[in-house]
Amino acid sequence: MKQIITFGEVLMRLSPEGNKKFIQANLLEFYFGGTEVNVGISIANFGEKVKHISCVSNDFVGDTAISYIQKFGVSTSAIVRSDRPLGVYFLEVGAVMRPSSISYNRSHSSFSEIKPEMVNWTNTLKKAKWIHWTGITPALSKGAYDTLKAGLLLAKEKGIAVSADPTYRKGLWKYGENAQEVLADLLSYSTIFIGGINEINEVLESNYEFSNDDFIEASKALMKKFPSIEKVFDKIRTPINASWHKIRARMWNGKEFRETSDFDITHIIDRIGTGDAFAAGLIYGLQEFDDYKSMEFASAACALKHTYEGDVNYATVSEVMGILDGNVSGRFNR
Amino acid sequence: MKQIITFGEVLMRLSPEGNKKFIQANLLEFYFGGTEVNVGISIANFGEKVKHISCVSNDFVGDTAISYIQKFGVSTSAIVRSDRPLGVYFLEVGAVMRPSSISYNRSHSSFSEIKPEMVNWTNTLKKAKWIHWTGITPALSKGAYDTLKAGLLLAKEKGIAVSADPTYRKGLWKYGENAQEVLADLLSYSTIFIGGINEINEVLESNYEFSNDDFIEASKALMKKFPSIEKVFDKIRTPINASWHKIRARMWNGKEFRETSDFDITHIIDRIGTGDAFAAGLIYGLQEFDDYKSMEFASAACALKHTYEGDVNYATVSEVMGILDGNVSGRFNR
Amino acid sequence: MKQIITFGEVLMRLSPEGNKKFIQANLLEFYFGGTEVNVGISIANFGEKVKHISCVSNDFVGDTAISYIQKFGVSTSAIVRSDRPLGVYFLEVGAVMRPSSISYNRSHSSFSEIKPEMVNWTNTLKKAKWIHWTGITPALSKGAYDTLKAGLLLAKEKGIAVSADPTYRKGLWKYGENAQEVLADLLSYSTIFIGGINEINEVLESNYEFSNDDFIEASKALMKKFPSIEKVFDKIRTPINASWHKIRARMWNGKEFRETSDFDITHIIDRIGTGDAFAAGLIYGLQEFDDYKSMEFASAACALKHTYEGDVNYATVSEVMGILDGNVSGRFNR
Amino acid sequence: MKQIITFGEVLMRLSPEGNKKFIQANLLEFYFGGTEVNVGISIANFGEKVKHISCVSNDFVGDTAISYIQKFGVSTSAIVRSDRPLGVYFLEVGAVMRPSSISYNRSHSSFSEIKPEMVNWTNTLKKAKWIHWTGITPALSKGAYDTLKAGLLLAKEKGIAVSADPTYRKGLWKYGENAQEVLADLLSYSTIFIGGINEINEVLESNYEFSNDDFIEASKALMKKFPSIEKVFDKIRTPINASWHKIRARMWNGKEFRETSDFDITHIIDRIGTGDAFAAGLIYGLQEFDDYKSMEFASAACALKHTYEGDVNYATVSEVMGILDGNVSGRFNR
Amino acid sequence: MKQIITFGEVLMRLSPEGNKKFIQANLLEFYFGGTEVNVGISIANFGEKVKHISCVSNDFVGDTAISYIQKFGVSTSAIVRSDRPLGVYFLEVGAVMRPSSISYNRSHSSFSEIKPEMVNWTNTLKKAKWIHWTGITPALSKGAYDTLKAGLLLAKEKGIAVSADPTYRKGLWKYGENAQEVLADLLSYSTIFIGGINEINEVLESNYEFSNDDFIEASKALMKKFPSIEKVFDKIRTPINASWHKIRARMWNGKEFRETSDFDITHIIDRIGTGDAFAAGLIYGLQEFDDYKSMEFASAACALKHTYEGDVNYATVSEVMGILDGNVSGRFNR
Amino acid sequence: MKQIITFGEVLMRLSPEGNKKFIQANLLEFYFGGTEVNVGISIANFGEKVKHISCVSNDFVGDTAISYIQKFGVSTSAIVRSDRPLGVYFLEVGAVMRPSSISYNRSHSSFSEIKPEMVNWTNTLKKAKWIHWTGITPALSKGAYDTLKAGLLLAKEKGIAVSADPTYRKGLWKYGENAQEVLADLLSYSTIFIGGINEINEVLESNYEFSNDDFIEASKALMKKFPSIEKVFDKIRTPINASWHKIRARMWNGKEFRETSDFDITHIIDRIGTGDAFAAGLIYGLQEFDDYKSMEFASAACALKHTYEGDVNYATVSEVMGILDGNVSGRFNR
Repeated sequence: MKQIITFGEVLMRLSPEGNKKFIQANLLEFYFGGTEVNVGISIANFGEKVKHISCVSNDFVGDTAISYIQKFGVSTSAIVRSDRPLGVYFLEVGAVMRPSSISYNRSHSSFSEIKPEMVNWTNTLKKAKWIHWTGITPALSKGAYDTLKAGLLLAKEKGIAVSADPTYRKGLWKYGENAQEVLADLLSYSTIFIGGINEINEVLESNYEFSNDDFIEASKALMKKFPSIEKVFDKIRTPINASWHKIRARMWNGKEFRETSDFDITHIIDRIGTGDAFAAGLIYGLQEFDDYKSMEFASAACALKHTYEGDVNYATVSEVMGILDGNVSGRFNR
Repeated sequence: MKQIITFGEVLMRLSPEGNKKFIQANLLEFYFGGTEVNVGISIANFGEKVKHISCVSNDFVGDTAISYIQKFGVSTSAIVRSDRPLGVYFLEVGAVMRPSSISYNRSHSSFSEIKPEMVNWTNTLKKAKWIHWTGITPALSKGAYDTLKAGLLLAKEKGIAVSADPTYRKGLWKYGENAQEVLADLLSYSTIFIGGINEINEVLESNYEFSNDDFIEASKALMKKFPSIEKVFDKIRTPINASWHKIRARMWNGKEFRETSDFDITHIIDRIGTGDAFAAGLIYGLQEFDDYKSMEFASAACALKHTYEGDVNYATVSEVMGILDGNVSGRFNR
Repeated sequence: MKQIITFGEVLMRLSPEGNKKFIQANLLEFYFGGTEVNVGISIANFGEKVKHISCVSNDFVGDTAISYIQKFGVSTSAIVRSDRPLGVYFLEVGAVMRPSSISYNRSHSSFSEIKPEMVNWTNTLKKAKWIHWTGITPALSKGAYDTLKAGLLLAKEKGIAVSADPTYRKGLWKYGENAQEVLADLLSYSTIFIGGINEINEVLESNYEFSNDDFIEASKALMKKFPSIEKVFDKIRTPINASWHKIRARMWNGKEFRETSDFDITHIIDRIGTGDAFAAGLIYGLQEFDDYKSMEFASAACALKHTYEGDVNYATVSEVMGILDGNVSGRFNR
Repeated sequence: MKQIITFGEVLMRLSPEGNKKFIQANLLEFYFGGTEVNVGISIANFGEKVKHISCVSNDFVGDTAISYIQKFGVSTSAIVRSDRPLGVYFLEVGAVMRPSSISYNRSHSSFSEIKPEMVNWTNTLKKAKWIHWTGITPALSKGAYDTLKAGLLLAKEKGIAVSADPTYRKGLWKYGENAQEVLADLLSYSTIFIGGINEINEVLESNYEFSNDDFIEASKALMKKFPSIEKVFDKIRTPINASWHKIRARMWNGKEFRETSDFDITHIIDRIGTGDAFAAGLIYGLQEFDDYKSMEFASAACALKHTYEGDVNYATVSEVMGILDGNVSGRFNR
Repeated sequence: MKQIITFGEVLMRLSPEGNKKFIQANLLEFYFGGTEVNVGISIANFGEKVKHISCVSNDFVGDTAISYIQKFGVSTSAIVRSDRPLGVYFLEVGAVMRPSSISYNRSHSSFSEIKPEMVNWTNTLKKAKWIHWTGITPALSKGAYDTLKAGLLLAKEKGIAVSADPTYRKGLWKYGENAQEVLADLLSYSTIFIGGINEINEVLESNYEFSNDDFIEASKALMKKFPSIEKVFDKIRTPINASWHKIRARMWNGKEFRETSDFDITHIIDRIGTGDAFAAGLIYGLQEFDDYKSMEFASAACALKHTYEGDVNYATVSEVMGILDGNVSGRFNR
Repeated sequence: MKQIITFGEVLMRLSPEGNKKFIQANLLEFYFGGTEVNVGISIANFGEKVKHISCVSNDFVGDTAISYIQKFGVSTSAIVRSDRPLGVYFLEVGAVMRPSSISYNRSHSSFSEIKPEMVNWTNTLKKAKWIHWTGITPALSKGAYDTLKAGLLLAKEKGIAVSADPTYRKGLWKYGENAQEVLADLLSYSTIFIGGINEINEVLESNYEFSNDDFIEASKALMKKFPSIEKVFDKIRTPINASWHKIRARMWNGKEFRETSDFDITHIIDRIGTGDAFAAGLIYGLQEFDDYKSMEFASAACALKHTYEGDVNYATVSEVMGILDGNVSGRFNR
C-alpha cells in the first residue's frame, strides 16, 4: 500500500478539563496535534498507510509526541529532533456565547528550525501517493517553507496528488515573506484545494473580492490562476453558538457544483481538528468514491469529529458510513 | 412490608470519563449494573423492600458488587458466589451522531453458572409480592433459564405478580435453546408485559408482523396467546441524536389504550438503565396508582434516569412526582 | 481609584463533579462564594478596585477562603476571623428536568457572629464610591443586620451609591426579626433596586399583589415608598429546563421602561451566581454607560456567567462587550 | 448471630488528595467516619453482625452517610434523622516532620441533638452481645451523654459486655458537664478498658500521676476504682515521624501482664482510625481467642489499618491472621 | 537490525489509584501488560527492534491494547484478533504489611484461542535474532503451548537464541497437560534460563530438592538435563515489607558463579513487571556486555522498574547505566 | 511594615501526577514557580510584606501566574507584561534511584525581555528593607542582568540588605556574558551569601579549588574578595536516594562557624523549591533571630518544604518553630 504523506508542526495542547478557565484549574489535559498531523492520524484511522514528517524536541516531551503519533500506527521514522522545545498551545474551551481562547508558545519551537536538508524527500516520496499541506507550515519559518516547497516540487514531478488547505493565519507570518506570494507559489504545485471564499480571495490577490455566494465564479477564477487545481471543496460552518454548530459542504470540480445538507451538531464536544477531519475525509474519499460521495464522506467525518475530545478524529470508515446511512439515533453498538 | 424480587446478572461497567474513547483514556469509571438489579435498586429508591438474587465472583470484585447493591438498601443475602469472574462490559459513550459502543466480557461469567439448586425460591417467595424478569437472563445459560423458570413457576402458584421485560438480544443466546420458545414459556407465567411491537412480534412467532401503529391489535394478540398477561406497557423513544431523545409511553390493559405526551430530554447525561427505570416505575406505580398514572410515573422516572450518571435511577418518589407536577424549570431545591 | 464595597458571608461550596449525586461520588469540587463576594469578584474582574468585608473561620479553611478572594485582586484587609467554622453548602447539580439540590450548613457559621464593632465603616467608606448589599445578610443574624445597617447609614450620609438585591429567602430568617421590616429599613438607604415583582411585593407589604405584567406600576409604588430608590432593574429568567434557560432584563428609572431581548443559553454550565453577575454588571455599567446600556451589559454578563463553572463570573469588560457586539459564533480568540 | 452495638457521631471527612494543603487543592476526597462507627464497620468486616446507632442530617448528605455505612453491611435501621447538618471535619495530611491538621465543624451537628427518647435501647439490646463507647460521645452534648448512659445502664443490667475507649479530648466538652465525672460515671458500667496511662490518670482524678512505666500499678488502681473493669488494653505508638510509626500493645487482665513486639509501619498511608481498628480487633478477638492472642490480633489489625486510605479498617480476619503468621513480604495474593 | 520476538498474552490491568481497595474506588487506572509483552516493550525502550506476537479481542479494547504496544514502537503486525474478550486482571496494591491482591479474568480470553496456524513463524523468524518465552504461555491452553512450541522448534533449527523464564503458576494449567512435562519440553529448545531454585526444582522433577544455597549445584543439574541451556540467571528479592525490597542477582554460566550486591528499593512505586525488566535487561545485555555486566545491567533495570507505575519498564540504556555508575542521589536531569 | 523585594522569572511548572512519566500521562498538574518568587511567597507565608517584580506573558497564562502570586498576598503591582509567552518547565518526578528530569522551554520567554526601564526601582525600593537575587536571573538575558544590577546598585546606595544565591547553572548563560564576571559584579553589592563550596569556587575564579571541608577558609576568601558580604550560609544535602535525603546547614559569619544537626527526610514529597525555602527562612530569620537560630529556622523551613507538593513552602513561622521544638511525631493539630 502506498503512503500518504503529511508534513507539519506537532504541538502540545494543554487545556483545563471541561469548560474551566486556567485560573480555576490545577490540572491540564494534554494532547498532541497540529493541523497536518491531525489529517494524517485521521487518514490512518481510515486504514491508510500514513507517514508524518516533522521536527520535534529532543527531550521527554518530544519522545511523548512521537509515541502519541505511533499509537495510531502513523510512521514517525522521518521525524527529526532538535534542541529547541516543542511548540505548545494553551486552550480554554468556551460554551454557548463564550468563545474558546487559545494562546500559543510556538515561535521558537523545534519545528520552526526545520531545513530542507533534514528531510529526504526522494526516499519519502518513493512510496507515496498523496501529500497534504496547509497554510500554517509556510507561515512559521523560511526553513519550513523551503522544506515544504522542496517536497511539493518533487511531488509535482512524480505526479503525486497534492491537497492544499491554504488557511491564512495573520498572527503567524513573522519571518519576512509575503503570505500571499508564498501561498500562491505553493498552490501552483497543488491539485486539490480545500477552502472557501476567504481563502480564495486571499490567494487571488485581485482587487475584486468574491462574496460568499460567488463560490462557482471564485472557484473558476482560482483554477484559472492555478491550472494544476482540479477540484475545490468548501466546508461551511453555521454556528448557533460555541456549543451548537451546523456543518455542510460544497464543491466545484470544474464540471459540477454540488452541496450537501447540514449536519446539526447540537452538543459539540470539541471542535478543534474538525476542519482537519474534513480534509482527511476528502483525501480518503477521493481515492474510493466519486467527488460528491467524497464530499459527503468528508462532511460526515467532520461532523463526527465534533464528538471526540482532542484534536484527532477517531472515526473509522464504517463509523463514517454509518452516519451517512442515517444511523444517528443513539442506538448502542454492541 | 413484603419484598419485590429481582433476579439476574450483575455486571461491572467500565467506561472512560465523559465522551472519551478507550484509546484516549487511562482511567475508567466503574459501576455495577444489569437490567434486573437496576430495576431492583430503582424500586428500593422508591422506598420498597427489595431482594436481588444473583451469583457473583468469589473475589474482591464480587465483594465490591455486593457492597454496591447494599449501599442502596437492597438485600444481598440470597446472592451466591462462584469461582468464575464477574461479567464485565466496556462502554464508550457517544454524542450527537456518534453512537455509544459496548463490548461484553460475560460469556463465562459467575452468573452463567447459576443452577436452580443454588436459589431457595420457597424461602425467597415466602415474603415476596412481586417478581421481575427480563429476556437477558434466559439468554445467558441453561442454568439461568432453569433457575428463573423455577422461580416463576412458584410465583404463579402463589399468585405473586410477575412482570416481564422480554427483550430479545440476538448476540446472546448461544447455549442452544430457541429464544422464542424460551421467552414464550416464561411469558406464560407473567402478568405484566413491558415491551413494544418488536418484542410482541418476536414472541408471537406468527407469520404476520405487526407494524408500530398496530399496538392495540398486537397487544390483544399477545394477551390471547398468553392469557396470564393483564397489561401491556410500551415506552417509545424518539431520538434526535445520541444526546437528545424524546420519551413517551403507551398502554393497553385489555380495556383502554392510553398514551402520555413526550418528555423532551435535551441534554442526556446517561441513557443506560432508562428502560429499567421505566420498568421500576411501573412496578412501583401499579401498587399505588391506576394504570395510566402508573405509566405516567414510569415515564417520568425513565426521563429522570437520563439525567443520572451510571446504570441506576436515583430518583425518589417525591422527585418523580415533582416532574409530573411540572417542576422542570431548574429551580433549586434548597 | 475609589473602591466598591461588598459585605456578606463567604461560604464554601462543595459539589460532586459533573452531574453526580453525593451517593455516587468520592470527590467534591470546592469553590468559595456567597452572593455579595460573587458580586465583588465579578466587579474586580471588570477592572474596578473592590474590597470585601466579612468574617471567616480562624483555621486553614478560612485561610483558603481569604486566599481565594485575593486571587482575584479583591482586598481582604477588612475580613475578620472567628473561632466558628466557615459556612458550607453542598450542591448536587441537576440536568434537564432534574433540579439542582442545595443543603446548607451555615446557621452557626463564623459570619453570623459578626458585630458592628468588628467593621470600621468610617475608614472603609473613606475610599468608597459604592456599596452593595443583599437580602441574605440581614437574614442571617442580628449582628449581620446591625453591621450592615451601620454601613448603609454612613453610606447614605456620605452620598455613596447603595445597590440593593433584597432577595427574600424564607428558610433563613431564624433569629427573630421580621424580614419585611428589616428589608424595608435597609431599602430606605438604597439607591438602586435589583429585583422583580416578587421582591417588590414582599417589601411593599401591601394587601395588593402586583402581577408580573405590572412592572412599571410596581416600580412606581416601590419608589413612592422608598424615595431614595432611583432605578429598578429586573432580570427575567425563562427556563426550558435545568440545562437550558433564556435571560432578559427590564428596567424603570422613573422616566422610561426598557427591556432587552433574550439571551438563549442552550447549554448551561453553572447557573449559580448568575444573578450576582447581573448585579455586578449593573454596578459596573451604571458608572460607565447610560441606564439601558448598563442593563444590556448586565444581561450579557449574566448570560456569560452561565458558561463558567463555580460561583464567579470570570468575564472581563471586553468579553462582555464582545457578546453585545454579537460575537456568539464560537470562533476562537487566538 | 447476636449483634455488636456501636453508638456515636458520624462525621463527613474532607481532605485534599495526597499531601496537598487546602490552599493548593480544588478537589476534596470524602469519607464518613467517627470513632465508634469506625469500630463498628471494622468489626463487620471481621464478619460480625453490627448495628450502629446515631443521628444524621435529613438531607442528601445524611442519605449518603447512611448509604456509606450500609455498604459494609452494618445495620442503619436505628439511625435517626435531624434537621441540623451532619458534622464535618477537614483534614490536611502531613508527612515526615509535618503534622496533619484537622479542623472541625461539628458543634451544632445533627448528632449533638440526640436525646434518650430517640433510641429504643430495649429493642436494640435484645439482640445484642456487646456495646462499645468512647469518650467523644459524652463530650458532645448532654443529650449524647444521657442517651449513651441509658444504653450502658441497660447493658449492665443484661450482662452485655461494655468496652470503653474513654479518650479525653479537651477541645470538646463545652456543654457544661465535668469530663472526669462523666467519664467515671460511664466507666462504672464498663467491662473492658481500652486506653493508656493518660486515660487512666484522667479518670482516676487522684493527685498522683502514674508514669508510663507504671502500667500495671495504674491498671490495678483503675480496676479498684471501677470494679466492673476486667481487662485493660493499651496500644503504644512510637512515631519516628508523621510517615513512619511503630505500634505495639500491652495488657493487664488482673492476672498477667503481656506485651507484643513492635509492628514497623515504614510507609503510613492513613493513620486515622488506627486506634479504632485496635478496639475493633479486641472486641472481635476477645470473643474468639484468649486475651494475649486478642491483643496480638488487635495490634495487627491496627498496624494493617495504617495501610488503608480513609477511616475504615478493611482487613478481614484472614488478612489479619496472615500478618500474625508473618506474611509481610509483599507477595501477591493471586 | 534483527528483531527480538516475544510471544504471549496481553492482559488489561485495572487497579484503583494509589493504595485504594476496589470497595473504596469508583475509578480504575488501566494499563496493558503480560509478562512477555512487558519484556518486549522494555527491550524496545533499550533501542532494539521488537515484535510481539499475540491474539487480542476484536473490539475497541483490543484496538486499545494494540495501540498501547505501538506507542513503544513494538511491531504489532503479527497480532491476530479473536471474538473472545481480552483477558483482564484486577489489582489492589498493598503497602507495608498489606500484600497486593490480584484477581484474574483470563480463562476464556482471546489469547487462549491461539492456534499454531495463526502465526507464521517462518516469516517472523526470518528477521529474528532472539525469542523469549515464559511459563505462563503454555499454562493457558493447548493452542498456546502448541503455537509456542512451533516457534521454539524453528528457532532452534535456525540457531536463534531462546530465553526461558519458566515460571510455574499452579493456579493456571487447567487444560489437561502436565506442567512439568510441558516446561521440560520447551526448555529443551532454550539457551538462557532465567529463574531460581524453585523453578529449577520444578523442572528437574527429581526426588531431591535443592535448597536456596545450592544454586551452583542446581544449575549444573539443570544444564545436565537440558544441554541447550548455557547460562542460568537468578534474581533474588529480599522483602522488608510490601513497600520496601532489596534486589540482587546471581548467575552460573557453566564456568563461573557471580553475584551482585543489593539494590535497596526503599519506596516501591510498582513492583509488577520487575521480573520482566530483569529478563529484558539480560536479553539486551547479553548482546552488548559480558555475562556479569549483563546481570548487573539486568539488576539495575529491575531495580529501576520498581519506580515506574504500570507493568512497563520505561528506563533507557543510559538511564540504567547511570544507576550502575552510582547516580542515585536524586539530582535532577535538566 | 517595610517590604522584601524579590525579582526574577515566573515559570509554569507542568508535571504528571505522582511518579508518572509524560508518556504514561494525559493530565499534568501545574504550579507557578521560579527560585526568586518561591523565596518571596515563602517569606509572605512567614507574615512579611513582599513584592515580586517580573515580566509575564500578556495572555490568560500570565493572568493566571499573577493570580497565583496574589493568592499568597504577595504584591504583583510591579509585574509587567510582554507579548512573549511565559516560560514553562516540564518535570518528571523520580523515586528511589530514578532521578527526576526537567525540560525547559524558557529561552524566549516573556521575562527574558525585561529591560531596566520597565522597573521603577526608585519607587520600589522606597518601601523596601531587603532584596533577594539568584544566579538564575543574570543568566537569562542581558536585559535581566541589567535590570537586576540597577536594582542592586540602588539597594547598596540605600543600605538595603541584599541576599545572594549565586547558583551557577551552566545550561543557561547563552546571551554572551561571562557568568563568573557577572556573578562577581552582582556579589559586590550583596551582604548575605547563600551557597556552598561549589558556588564559592565559581565566583572566586582562582586556580585553587577549595574542598568541601574548607568551608571556613573558602568563606574567608569569599569575604576578602567581596567585602560587602557579611555572612555565608550553606545548606548541605546528603541524599540516600531520590526519595530520602538528609539536610543540615553550616555558617561562617566572620566570627564563628556553626553547624546544625541533620533533618532526616525519610519520605520526600517534593524537593523543588527546598533551597528557596532555606533562603526564605534565612531572610526571615536574620530579621528576628541571631545568626545560628536563623540558620536553624532556615534548615527547618527547608526540611518542611520537602513535605509540600509544588514549588512553594507553605509553612508558617509557628509551624517551623514547632519542628525546632521537636514536634515531629505525627500528632494531629486539631
